[in-house]
Amino acid sequence: MKTAIMTELEKVEIIETAIPVPTADEVLVKIEYVGVCGSDLHYYEHGRISNFIVETPFVLGHECSGTVTKVGEKVTHLKVGDRVALEPGKTCGVCEHCKSGKYNLCPDVIFFATPPVPGTFQEFVTHEARLCFKLPDNVSTMEGALIEPLAVGFHAAIQGGASVGQTAVVTGAGAIGLVSLLALKAMGVSKVYVVDVLPKRLEKALELGANGVINGMEEDAVAKIMELTEGKGVDLSIETAGTEITMTQLLKMAKKGSTVVFVGYSAKETVSLPVNLIMDKELSIQSVFRYRNIFPLAIESVAAGIVPIKDIVSDYFEFDNIQAGLQNCVKNKADIVKAVIKL
Amino acid sequence: MKTAIMTELEKVEIIETAIPVPTADEVLVKIEYVGVCGSDLHYYEHGRISNFIVETPFVLGHECSGTVTKVGEKVTHLKVGDRVALEPGKTCGVCEHCKSGKYNLCPDVIFFATPPVPGTFQEFVTHEARLCFKLPDNVSTMEGALIEPLAVGFHAAIQGGASVGQTAVVTGAGAIGLVSLLALKAMGVSKVYVVDVLPKRLEKALELGANGVINGMEEDAVAKIMELTEGKGVDLSIETAGTEITMTQLLKMAKKGSTVVFVGYSAKETVSLPVNLIMDKELSIQSVFRYRNIFPLAIESVAAGIVPIKDIVSDYFEFDNIQAGLQNCVKNKADIVKAVIKL
Amino acid sequence: MKTAIMTELEKVEIIETAIPVPTADEVLVKIEYVGVCGSDLHYYEHGRISNFIVETPFVLGHECSGTVTKVGEKVTHLKVGDRVALEPGKTCGVCEHCKSGKYNLCPDVIFFATPPVPGTFQEFVTHEARLCFKLPDNVSTMEGALIEPLAVGFHAAIQGGASVGQTAVVTGAGAIGLVSLLALKAMGVSKVYVVDVLPKRLEKALELGANGVINGMEEDAVAKIMELTEGKGVDLSIETAGTEITMTQLLKMAKKGSTVVFVGYSAKETVSLPVNLIMDKELSIQSVFRYRNIFPLAIESVAAGIVPIKDIVSDYFEFDNIQAGLQNCVKNKADIVKAVIKL
Amino acid sequence: MKTAIMTELEKVEIIETAIPVPTADEVLVKIEYVGVCGSDLHYYEHGRISNFIVETPFVLGHECSGTVTKVGEKVTHLKVGDRVALEPGKTCGVCEHCKSGKYNLCPDVIFFATPPVPGTFQEFVTHEARLCFKLPDNVSTMEGALIEPLAVGFHAAIQGGASVGQTAVVTGAGAIGLVSLLALKAMGVSKVYVVDVLPKRLEKALELGANGVINGMEEDAVAKIMELTEGKGVDLSIETAGTEITMTQLLKMAKKGSTVVFVGYSAKETVSLPVNLIMDKELSIQSVFRYRNIFPLAIESVAAGIVPIKDIVSDYFEFDNIQAGLQNCVKNKADIVKAVIKL
Repeated sequence: MKTAIMTELEKVEIIETAIPVPTADEVLVKIEYVGVCGSDLHYYEHGRISNFIVETPFVLGHECSGTVTKVGEKVTHLKVGDRVALEPGKTCGVCEHCKSGKYNLCPDVIFFATPPVPGTFQEFVTHEARLCFKLPDNVSTMEGALIEPLAVGFHAAIQGGASVGQTAVVTGAGAIGLVSLLALKAMGVSKVYVVDVLPKRLEKALELGANGVINGMEEDAVAKIMELTEGKGVDLSIETAGTEITMTQLLKMAKKGSTVVFVGYSAKETVSLPVNLIMDKELSIQSVFRYRNIFPLAIESVAAGIVPIKDIVSDYFEFDNIQAGLQNCVKNKADIVKAVIKL
Repeated sequence: MKTAIMTELEKVEIIETAIPVPTADEVLVKIEYVGVCGSDLHYYEHGRISNFIVETPFVLGHECSGTVTKVGEKVTHLKVGDRVALEPGKTCGVCEHCKSGKYNLCPDVIFFATPPVPGTFQEFVTHEARLCFKLPDNVSTMEGALIEPLAVGFHAAIQGGASVGQTAVVTGAGAIGLVSLLALKAMGVSKVYVVDVLPKRLEKALELGANGVINGMEEDAVAKIMELTEGKGVDLSIETAGTEITMTQLLKMAKKGSTVVFVGYSAKETVSLPVNLIMDKELSIQSVFRYRNIFPLAIESVAAGIVPIKDIVSDYFEFDNIQAGLQNCVKNKADIVKAVIKL
Repeated sequence: MKTAIMTELEKVEIIETAIPVPTADEVLVKIEYVGVCGSDLHYYEHGRISNFIVETPFVLGHECSGTVTKVGEKVTHLKVGDRVALEPGKTCGVCEHCKSGKYNLCPDVIFFATPPVPGTFQEFVTHEARLCFKLPDNVSTMEGALIEPLAVGFHAAIQGGASVGQTAVVTGAGAIGLVSLLALKAMGVSKVYVVDVLPKRLEKALELGANGVINGMEEDAVAKIMELTEGKGVDLSIETAGTEITMTQLLKMAKKGSTVVFVGYSAKETVSLPVNLIMDKELSIQSVFRYRNIFPLAIESVAAGIVPIKDIVSDYFEFDNIQAGLQNCVKNKADIVKAVIKL
Repeated sequence: MKTAIMTELEKVEIIETAIPVPTADEVLVKIEYVGVCGSDLHYYEHGRISNFIVETPFVLGHECSGTVTKVGEKVTHLKVGDRVALEPGKTCGVCEHCKSGKYNLCPDVIFFATPPVPGTFQEFVTHEARLCFKLPDNVSTMEGALIEPLAVGFHAAIQGGASVGQTAVVTGAGAIGLVSLLALKAMGVSKVYVVDVLPKRLEKALELGANGVINGMEEDAVAKIMELTEGKGVDLSIETAGTEITMTQLLKMAKKGSTVVFVGYSAKETVSLPVNLIMDKELSIQSVFRYRNIFPLAIESVAAGIVPIKDIVSDYFEFDNIQAGLQNCVKNKADIVKAVIKL
C-alpha cells in the first residue's frame, strides 16, 4: 500500500509499505478521505508543536474515514464493508481521567500523527474497532473525515454551555472557528457573530450561517458587538484565533455571568489579559483539549441534516499530489479554509 | 371594554368593565390573541384543579399577547405601540426560590386565571412591565400568544438536559407534548418519537417534525422504541399524558443513566410505578412546574425561525364567540389540538 | 487456601482451594476483612436477587480489604505489602457508559459475588490492580473493608447534590442509611434527620451524628419533619428503606425544588406514589446503582478523620465461624446493623 | 446616634446624626459589630477602588450585625430583639440576573459603603428585612458580623465545585484566603494548602485548619505542591492574592481538568498568564463577584460548629477609637489579619 512519509521540513513522499494486520479488537480500514489539519501543516512546516517534535520519517494526518476491509475476531459491531469515521485517540480506560469520563485528558493517549505516533496519510490503517464509528447511509465518507474537526466545535460549544436562544461570538474563522459556528447553530444558538481579519474566511462564515461577521481590521469588534447586543454583551464566546487581541476582546464582549471558551493556542508563552474583568463580570472561562464522547452525536447531527459539514471544505486534492497539496496549503493560508485529501 | 366572565360551569358571557389603569411599574396592554389552555378548559368544565377552586364570576385565560397602549411612569424598556407577549406570573422577588432563580416556585406568585386571580379573556389588561416581553418585528402577536405554552415545552426540554444528537420520546401529543417536541428539535435533538392514541394528534406531531409516531392503541410502544434504538432505549423522555401507562412506558424506554421528565399531571392521587427500574438504570426523574427564565429564549427561537410555533394551532375563534368556542373545545377534545381566540 | 462456599440455602462451608495467580495487570491480595452486605445475606437466604440466581457452589462476599502479596508484571502503583481496599466491579472501559464516566452502568461489568461471578469470602483473591486502592497508614484494613458500603453512601449524597448548610432526611437506618448519614455530614450538611422503625438502628444513627431520629412507628414522620423545618421541608432526602411508605414520606417531606435520592430497592414490583407532588414541587428524583469514582475520595475522607466509618460496625466474627456468623445475621436482622468477618 | 464619617483620606470622625426610620419592608438594626474589610481600608487610604470614588463625607463599613429595634409594618419574619446578620446588597429582583438567581450581578445593586451608598460604621441602620438574617441562639453577633466575609469564602468554594476528599490550594492568606480555607474544610475538602509570604498569616492559616502552608518567599510553591500531590496537581485552586505570580502558580499547580477560582483583584490593568496551560490541561476558571444565596448556609455552618469563624479575628477595637483603629490597620497590614469594631 502507499504511505506518505514526511522526510524533512516541507517534504513528503509516497512509499510502499506493508498493509497492517488488525489485532483481535481492531479493524483494518481502507482510508478514503483525510482532512488536512492545522497541526499537520504546522508539523510539516516547522517540525514541532510545543514539546511534540517530529523525527523523520513520520506520517502525518488524523482526520479520516474509510471502509472496513478486515475485522478482528473479537469485534462485533462492525463488519467488512461498513463505512466509518475514525476517532484518532486510543486511551487507557483505567486512569482517573478515563474513569471519570474525561478520557481526552488521559496521559497515556496514543493519538494519530502526534509524534511519535504515525498518522493516517496512508491507504490502510488498523484501529481499535471501538474508535471506528459507523456512518449512516446518508453520511458520505467525505463527511466522515470531517467528523473529527466538527467534534472540536461541538466540544467547544458544549463546554461553553451553548443553549437555545443565546447570542454568541466566535473569534477566528479558520476551520475550528467554522465548526464552532456550525455546532452553535445546531444547538439552537439563535445569533452567532464571527470575527476574523481575512475576507475569504468571513465569507465562508456567512455562507455557513453566521448571523453577522466583523472584520477586526476594519471595525472595532467590541464596539460592534456591544451595539448589536444593546450594551449587554454576548451569552457565550468561543476563542479560536489564539491571539492576545481576540482573547481580550472576548473578555470585553462577554455578558456578565457568561462563559468564554478558550480553544485556540497562543503563539506566545504568556498573554496579557485584563483579568479584573473576569471578576467584575463573574465570567466563567472554559477550555478545550481535543474532545470526548462527541463522535456519535456529531455523526448524528450530520445525518439529521442539522450540520452542513461538507460546506466547510474549500479545497480538495488527490493523495498522489500530496506534496503539492500540502505545499499549497502552507503557501496560501489566507485562501484555503479547509483542504481534504481524496485517496 | 369587554370582559368574558365565567358565570357557572360551561358558561361564559361577555360584559362591559372599566379599562384598568397601570401603576408606575406596569403597562396597559390591548390583548390581541389568547390561547385556550387545557387548564382553562378544566376550570370551565369542572370548576377546579386540585385545590384551586373557581368562585364565579371568574375570568379565564393566561396565554396572551397584545399591544402596549399605556406605560407606567417608571417603565423604561417599553413604549406605546410595542407588541408584547405576557408572562402570566408575578412573583415576590425576595423569597428563597425567587432569590435562587427558581421563581416559578415562589409561594406568593400571582398567576393569571389561577383562582382567585382573574385571567386575560378581556380586551385590556394591566401587567408588570418586566413580564411583558417585546416581540421582534418578525414575530406576530398570534405567535406571541403561543410563547406561554412554548415556554413549558422549553422548560421540559431544558429540565431534561436536552442536547444535540440525542434520541427522545414524548408521550402525549396534546399542546404540551407538541411544544415539547418543538423545543427538543430546536435544541438539536436529532430524533424525537411521539406516542399518543389519537390519530389527529399524531398527524400533527409528524407535521411538526416528529421523526416517528406511535399509536399506543395499535402498537406496543415500548417494544417499538427498543427496536428503533437497537435495544438501548432513549436518551431523554418527556411525559405529558399524565397516565400510569405512559409513565411506566417511559421508565421502560429510558436508556441507562438517562433522564425522564414528568410534566403531565395524573388524574389519580397515586400512580403505581416500577420504581426498581429507576435504580437499576440509575435514571434521573426531573419535573416541570410552569417555567422560569424562558420567555426571552422562546421568543428568540421563534424569531430565528427554528420553532414554527404557529403550526400547533388547529382552531381559531373570535372573542365574541367565546362561549361557543370553549364549548366546542370541551366537546371535541380529540380533534382540537390547540385553539386560539382572536380579539 | 480456605474458601467459603455456599452449598445450598443458608449453608456455607469452608474448603481448600488453590491460591490464584495474578495476570500481568492484577495483584494477589491476602484478604483481611470482608463486610457482610445485605445482598450477601439475601443470596444466602433466598438464593436470588431479581434476575441474578445463585448456582451452588457459589462464593459470596464483596466488601473487602487486605494486603498485596503478589504483583503482576505490568503493575506499577502497588507493591507487595501494600494494604488495599478492593473496588469489586471490573468494567469494560470502552462502552458508551464507561467512556462517559458512568462506568457503574457498564453492561459487561464483572462484580464480585453477583452470580455467576464468585466473591471474596476466601483467603486470597486476584484483582485488577487499578481497582485496588492503597490505604494510607492511618486507615486500617478493617476500615478498608468498609470503603465499599461507604462508597454507596457518598454516591447517594453526591447524586443528591449534598451541599454545606443543608437539612436532610434519610429514611432507613440500615448500613446504607448510616453510610448515607456519614457522607452527608462529611459534605457539610448541617442537619440530618434519620427515620426508621428499629430502636437499635436509630440509636446507632444518633451515635454516628444524626441531628435527630424519628421512629416511624411512634411518630408521624412527615409532620415531625415539617415541624422541624418550619413547614418548608428538607433540602435533600435519601431513601434507603425501599418501602412505599418511606418513598411517599420523602415526596411529602421534600422542600419545593429539592432532590430526593432513591437507593433502596422495593420488594414489590410496583409502588404507588403521589406523583403529582413531584410536579407541584418540581422535585428532582435521582437514583443510585452502586457507585463510580468514589473509592479515592471515600478513603481520603476516612484518612482525614471526617468519616468515622468503623463505628457503623455492630458485630464481628471469625472466618472459621462464617456459617454461624451468617446464620446469626439472618436471624437477628433487627439487632445487627453491620457485621464484618475477620480472616 | 453616632456615625463615623470619612472626611478626607485617612481621616474619620464621629458625628451625631438622626436615627433613621424603617419603611414598611425594612427593620431598624442597632449595630453591634462591624468588620473592617480590605475595601474599607482601601477607600480610607486611597479614596477609590476602580471606578468607585469616595466623595466625602462618606460612611464606610458593610460587614455588620446587630439587634432589631424597630420593624416595618409588612415585615413578618423578624421581631424586635432578634439578632441579625446583614447582607449588604439590595438588588432589583426583576432584571435578567436577579430573575436567574445571579442577583450579585444586578446592575442596580445598592451596596453598603460602595460609593455613593453610605455604609454601616454607625450605631443604627435601616435595611430591607429580607436581607437581615436571624442568628440562632448559639451564634453570637460578633460571629454575625463575620458572615459577610465568610459568604465570599463559601461562594468561592462553591463556584469552584469544592467536594469531599479533594486536595486544594489557596493563594493569599488574608481574610478572604482564610474564609476560603474555612469554607473548603466545611465542605469536606480533605487537604488544603495555603500559600502566602507573611508568616503571621500562614500561622493563622495553620491555626484555622490548613493541612500545610507554604511561604512563597522561602519555597518554590509550585514544586512543593507537585511534590505533595505526587506530580498530579490539585483538584481545586482559589486565588485571593491578586498577583501575577500567584495566578501563574495556580495555573501550574492545577491538576488536568480541574478548576481555578479567581477572587483577588489585580492591582495591574493586565496580567500576563501562561494561557496555553489552560487548554493543555483543559482547566476551568471560575470567578467570584461578592456572593449570592450564601448567608443562610453560612450562618447554618457556624451554628453547626463546622466553621470556627470567630478565630479569623486578630484585632478588635471600640467604635469610639475608630480613627486610631483604622489607622492601625493601614499601618500594620502584615500583622492584622482581620479587625472587628465593637459598638
